[in-house]
Amino acid sequence: MTITQESQNQLAELLRGTQEVLVESELVKKLSRGTPLRIKAGFDPTAPDLHLGHTVLINKMRQFQNFGHEVTFLIGDFTGMIGDPSGRNATRPPLTREQVDANAQTYQEQIFKILDREKTRIDFNSRWFGNMNASGLIEIAGRQTVARMLERDDFSKRYKGGQPIAIHEFLYPLVQGYDSVALKSDVELGGTDQKFNLLVGRQLQETYGQEPQIVMTMPLLEGLDGVNKMSKSLGNYIGINEPADVQFGKLMSISDDLMWRYFELLSFRPLGEVAGLKRAIAEGRNPRDVKFELGVELVDRFHGAGVGTRARDAFVARFQQGQVPEKIERITLTTDGSPQRLAGVLKNAGLVSSTSDGNRMIDQGAVRVGSSPEGLAKVTERDRALGPGTYLVQVGKHKYRWVTLEPG
Amino acid sequence: MTITQESQNQLAELLRGTQEVLVESELVKKLSRGTPLRIKAGFDPTAPDLHLGHTVLINKMRQFQNFGHEVTFLIGDFTGMIGDPSGRNATRPPLTREQVDANAQTYQEQIFKILDREKTRIDFNSRWFGNMNASGLIEIAGRQTVARMLERDDFSKRYKGGQPIAIHEFLYPLVQGYDSVALKSDVELGGTDQKFNLLVGRQLQETYGQEPQIVMTMPLLEGLDGVNKMSKSLGNYIGINEPADVQFGKLMSISDDLMWRYFELLSFRPLGEVAGLKRAIAEGRNPRDVKFELGVELVDRFHGAGVGTRARDAFVARFQQGQVPEKIERITLTTDGSPQRLAGVLKNAGLVSSTSDGNRMIDQGAVRVGSSPEGLAKVTERDRALGPGTYLVQVGKHKYRWVTLEPG
Repeated sequence: MTITQESQNQLAELLRGTQEVLVESELVKKLSRGTPLRIKAGFDPTAPDLHLGHTVLINKMRQFQNFGHEVTFLIGDFTGMIGDPSGRNATRPPLTREQVDANAQTYQEQIFKILDREKTRIDFNSRWFGNMNASGLIEIAGRQTVARMLERDDFSKRYKGGQPIAIHEFLYPLVQGYDSVALKSDVELGGTDQKFNLLVGRQLQETYGQEPQIVMTMPLLEGLDGVNKMSKSLGNYIGINEPADVQFGKLMSISDDLMWRYFELLSFRPLGEVAGLKRAIAEGRNPRDVKFELGVELVDRFHGAGVGTRARDAFVARFQQGQVPEKIERITLTTDGSPQRLAGVLKNAGLVSSTSDGNRMIDQGAVRVGSSPEGLAKVTERDRALGPGTYLVQVGKHKYRWVTLEPG
Repeated sequence: MTITQESQNQLAELLRGTQEVLVESELVKKLSRGTPLRIKAGFDPTAPDLHLGHTVLINKMRQFQNFGHEVTFLIGDFTGMIGDPSGRNATRPPLTREQVDANAQTYQEQIFKILDREKTRIDFNSRWFGNMNASGLIEIAGRQTVARMLERDDFSKRYKGGQPIAIHEFLYPLVQGYDSVALKSDVELGGTDQKFNLLVGRQLQETYGQEPQIVMTMPLLEGLDGVNKMSKSLGNYIGINEPADVQFGKLMSISDDLMWRYFELLSFRPLGEVAGLKRAIAEGRNPRDVKFELGVELVDRFHGAGVGTRARDAFVARFQQGQVPEKIERITLTTDGSPQRLAGVLKNAGLVSSTSDGNRMIDQGAVRVGSSPEGLAKVTERDRALGPGTYLVQVGKHKYRWVTLEPG
């Protein structure tokens, strides 16, 4: 097998940012055949409101498309329409066909900001499961063992902990795995938490005499704080439907380290170019300008070409108005390691006279917090708490302090 | 709730010979309503060749019929037509519809020797499962937990022993349990080995808002040896299609203790009459004559009224020809507890000069063994072995010995 420079590049880009690839040598083999591979990624049929974290997977699908492979965006409506028959999960009521279709529409409005509409196949697993009868499912269930299923981390913990696992929960990974059989998929993409289920698909394909799919897991994207995974409930997210200025401003607030992570997982700039940007910074280029490039690329993606540049210019204008002084006093506060309420931090940092004064300033919208001057963002919730780390804190127009919270 | 003498009698007869009734008080309550109960008993769709051991359950069904209840003979053809999808059980190939129908026919030819044809409903669980789709089965699977299923003895042992359990094996008890839901059964009958599955039916009914069925298990019938369960492979059986003389002769060979067990589980004579027979023997009646009554009843059941009496007369005639002397020498042989080859026993008991002489006599059909003079039966297999116990052994026309094999 001769490996051309082009296929070397393709492989490097496809592996870019992946958490795990099982098995890489099989991927190389499949790619070397030169025919388009069938790429599968499954999605819940629940109403999606995507943020950048979700796009990591979709970006990888787009990469495969760019290299000429066939991508299926598979909506798992079959199990979604069953819901949770054990009744234990109140948050998972059965969906109607209408709801599934509406959600699929919502998905499409979002994913086609990333995927090529012409080259994307949207499919529903009810297409093969909707008409399957009970004996068909029993037949599938005969191809996997109970012990293997109990190896899955969450099942294992629940079983050992005496927490109930309803038997249908054993069937869902099989359903998902059978989807790979039905699609004859060559590669399945999923989050790291999906690894087990993706491997079930691999095994099932083998029992059906198919070449087993490559399992490719993508990591969870870190949120704006650079620590926790991006999630709506943690508030550290950038939604793909958020306004351009909000997206741009949030991106400017991330650390330089996180910027490289986002380049790896969110940017479509080739690896060679990203390496070039790194070199430029090492040679003196302002990292802020590189972050601008990332911001422009991502805002353009979600709002259209040209919008990114306008968002950048608006940002610069605002930034220059509220110019942060070059010299800012630094203070280190020793904590017990738990998150500290902001008003108390303001007081201990000497920015306000008392915690009630601090709360008043928060109420008035006079407090901003960030990890850098570009990232300063207004805080309006009294119960905002800060974990260990270093923060730039602004109170009113002119009071700034770098505050380090250090567990002592 | 007033309990009449009649319903007291009904309850006593229905409890007769049962291994376990869960829950007896609920049975009393259901019976007290005075309306016919729906009785369910499930059977494998594999080709049946019934012996007396199988009839224990069918007799109980007949009892329920006699008391006016509605009996369903349920053939589990749905799973039978799937076979074993894991491929681990080569002895369980999927059956075709034609095979199932042929087997059902074979069943009917046999069971209607016991059950009232007019009052028996033959049903197939493919009636409700045949059209069920995969989501219906998932819905059922959501009503039971993995932990509960792993409590089943054989599953637990296999799981702990690292032996594979295919996931569809978890579905079969649910299928069987759902049959009770479909039939809205009040009582399910089964062998002791079915207890777990029967309880699954009880639980499933509750999740469907039905009054849970009573689980009634029947014991395994001891074979002619009075020790092992009756089975074809052990050779200690009476087949319901065997000739009348064979059936009668085999019944005459059982011990007196076993006779009472057979009265309990195989005879339809009311409990009061059986108690009367016991009293008569205590007062001097020959147990042989009581055994005759059992033999006549059972032969009549399988061959028609009057055939039992003829079989008895033929037996007596043969018996008188080969009259056994009143005084027979007794000998006790000490063994290691394992079954002893017959030829060796003959030699040690002084009935032959050597084991090869013993084998020759066996080959010539000159050796008979039994637990009583009436039970003497020709032995033609050299490898027949005798476990601990007392045997009447006959060699040739006139040599008899009572031989006791005693582990020392």
